Amino acid sequence: MSRLEQQLEFLRVVDALKRVDRMTRLIQRSGETSRRENSAEHSWHLALMAMMLIEHANEPVDLARVLQMILVHDIVEIDAGDTFVYDAAAMIGKAEREQQAAERIFGMLPDDQKAEFLALWHEFEARETPEAKYASALDRLAGMLPNAANNGGTWNEHQVTVEQVTRRNESIATGSDVLWDHARQWIHAVHAAGLIDTEADRQ
Amino acid sequence: MSRLEQQLEFLRVVDALKRVDRMTRLIQRSGETSRRENSAEHSWHLALMAMMLIEHANEPVDLARVLQMILVHDIVEIDAGDTFVYDAAAMIGKAEREQQAAERIFGMLPDDQKAEFLALWHEFEARETPEAKYASALDRLAGMLPNAANNGGTWNEHQVTVEQVTRRNESIATGSDVLWDHARQWIHAVHAAGLIDTEADRQ
Repeated sequence: MSRLEQQLEFLRVVDALKRVDRMTRLIQRSGETSRRENSAEHSWHLALMAMMLIEHANEPVDLARVLQMILVHDIVEIDAGDTFVYDAAAMIGKAEREQQAAERIFGMLPDDQKAEFLALWHEFEARETPEAKYASALDRLAGMLPNAANNGGTWNEHQVTVEQVTRRNESIATGSDVLWDHARQWIHAVHAAGLIDTEADRQ
Repeated sequence: MSRLEQQLEFLRVVDALKRVDRMTRLIQRSGETSRRENSAEHSWHLALMAMMLIEHANEPVDLARVLQMILVHDIVEIDAGDTFVYDAAAMIGKAEREQQAAERIFGMLPDDQKAEFLALWHEFEARETPEAKYASALDRLAGMLPNAANNGGTWNEHQVTVEQVTRRNESIATGSDVLWDHARQWIHAVHAAGLIDTEADRQ
């Protein structure tokens, strides 16, 4: 295969990200139970968020790098699936499954692009650079946005506690204090509406 | 509403792009009739294509600008719908419908971002800057990719001719001669397989 044919074949294979469903649902219209969102459309929404909210990043970030990381960050789910973050059993072995997926899928690319895509994915996962901290913060915010809008959404469905949602998402502050301050208000509102419990509520 | 609340409300509203279906279908697996793709997941795929194929652009382009245009380019379809490009009747009034949609949807943003998003969308539509020529070329290539992979896909379903496909897509060359050369081979292959006709075939 020529270099271009390798690139196009990769683009055909990753079309399958449109078939990977996440737990979260589309933002609901009145009276509706909306379908789950898939990881491809989530990636678009997340990229748009990153572009729009960049003024709220804690540190200056390079937008092109942020967007590239976001466009690539979920591709491993084509093989490894989306793992529900509040399912402790499912989280076991996630890193290994995803590493194998990255080797197989990015391994279809020409060597220089394989290295580039692996580096973007590792950078995102490591959350050390300003760009990765910001991109990762947005990824968590993107998980919270529909749940906050959908009467607690999957938090309510799966009876997740205020403390679990807080622990899972508090690293948003590493990328953006402003966004974490706002997201905490969502958790507070969902709790105040009786849609999720604190640990104390259950005692 | 605070500036951040305005931005988040916009992000909730544009979630609806995940509900706008295009004519093209997901790349099919053997024996399957896949579902239509929606404009949000298409936007992700297109952004990924733009990032991966940038070496094939005719002119040097700024990747961040290309990606921003792509992330925004279909948002007007939330109000205006996706218009099948080979349906001449549906194409009438498309520009006006989309302009109204842009005013309403981007009008939800703070003024500076409304101006920024309108400028990105107009730049994409005008196809004059190197970035817009490249982004628009990719948008057409992204329409061709699943049809070429799906035994002619919507070209075959709607009995579009070789000449119609060619006229619709030849502007790819404005953004990338390399990609248009390759895309012409797809048209040739689909015709050679008897899946679409030339005008001469029909006489």
